[in-house]
Amino acid sequence: MNAIMTIHDWPIGPYPARVRIAIAEKSLQPRIRFETVHLRKGEHKRPEFLAKNYSGTLPVLELEDGTFIAECTAITEYLDALDGAPTLTGRTPRERGLIHMMNKRAEIELLDPISVYFHHATPGLGPDVELYQNAEWGLRQRDKALRGMRYFDGVLRQQPFVAGDFFSMADIAVIGGLIFAELLKVPVPEEYGALLAWYARVQERPSVRNRVTMSDPAAAMA
Amino acid sequence: MNAIMTIHDWPIGPYPARVRIAIAEKSLQPRIRFETVHLRKGEHKRPEFLAKNYSGTLPVLELEDGTFIAECTAITEYLDALDGAPTLTGRTPRERGLIHMMNKRAEIELLDPISVYFHHATPGLGPDVELYQNAEWGLRQRDKALRGMRYFDGVLRQQPFVAGDFFSMADIAVIGGLIFAELLKVPVPEEYGALLAWYARVQERPSVRNRVTMSDPAAAMA
Repeated sequence: MNAIMTIHDWPIGPYPARVRIAIAEKSLQPRIRFETVHLRKGEHKRPEFLAKNYSGTLPVLELEDGTFIAECTAITEYLDALDGAPTLTGRTPRERGLIHMMNKRAEIELLDPISVYFHHATPGLGPDVELYQNAEWGLRQRDKALRGMRYFDGVLRQQPFVAGDFFSMADIAVIGGLIFAELLKVPVPEEYGALLAWYARVQERPSVRNRVTMSDPAAAMA
Repeated sequence: MNAIMTIHDWPIGPYPARVRIAIAEKSLQPRIRFETVHLRKGEHKRPEFLAKNYSGTLPVLELEDGTFIAECTAITEYLDALDGAPTLTGRTPRERGLIHMMNKRAEIELLDPISVYFHHATPGLGPDVELYQNAEWGLRQRDKALRGMRYFDGVLRQQPFVAGDFFSMADIAVIGGLIFAELLKVPVPEEYGALLAWYARVQERPSVRNRVTMSDPAAAMA
């Protein structure tokens, strides 16, 4: 159970952040090595990488036997189950259901729309990578993400964490969305006080604070 | 553990199909009642329904205590965990990781693109429901779904089921995509023989065959 695993990612990426936070929450850093995939060079769209992950997205987890697991939720499920004591994905059926619901909701209402805005209504990763853009769609998605922030603010007025009483994969997904929004200078509106207070609170967690430099600090600067 | 649960759905819907198949695979029919939400009347976009599911999508599971669980993956996680013996979402970390990866891949590469095509590049649910359409985006998503079919054909040339050796939540997600494609008359190209053979095979499962009429046959005709 002490095999070394490889994460293929881009150190400052918002989706990679989700898995880096999960790794630190599970204290798995000693078992992970990181391989940088250069997004701005479009390395994630080349055949070598697409053979690892058909969807051409980061991060990807590579197991010691050469198996690739893509998609943040899937990687988090894998890592959280390794020690038989899940803390991020829920223990009871009810916890599992609510965490998966809120995790998906964070993706479709906040993180993914911000990503579509980036790739379609801003220069994104540059003309060599962004071969098709639909600016109208991208701008609508930015507006959707802002509505998503309002929704999560409402949730966090009712309960301390995104899926209830404890920190989970669903919080990590919202953190990913806010990291992406910050990179794009789409700030959380000031009136969303519960969301901002929660964000300040979760950023005190070492898993969130040290995610970029948790390993491979040279690559983090690349 | 014998509480009655309610599924709010639309009997012939492709996303509702995913949860109906999961219910039958887990033999949970006696514990489920169905409530029809009329998609073509836009009932899923009204405030009463949005209070149940912010995203305005079907299906939604309502527990006896009034808790709502939306999103097919989350509902399937809940139902599959109820008896302590998961069969659809994986038992080992590796199974869980691979099933969640392929489930998500089926969504982003096949099912969701077909849905976007429907809502943006066809009349969709009609002008009273489809308040904004982006046809160019919708047509690109249809093409993405066709590439997704080719991808899953390749997967099924290598292994009997979408995530490996046994039927899982990931197969159900691909089934959802092909149900939606059929409704829209976007057939699987003939040359994708492995995908077509797998689809014929999974349609022999009672869970798939009887999904629309598994309960509430009057509503199924509505």
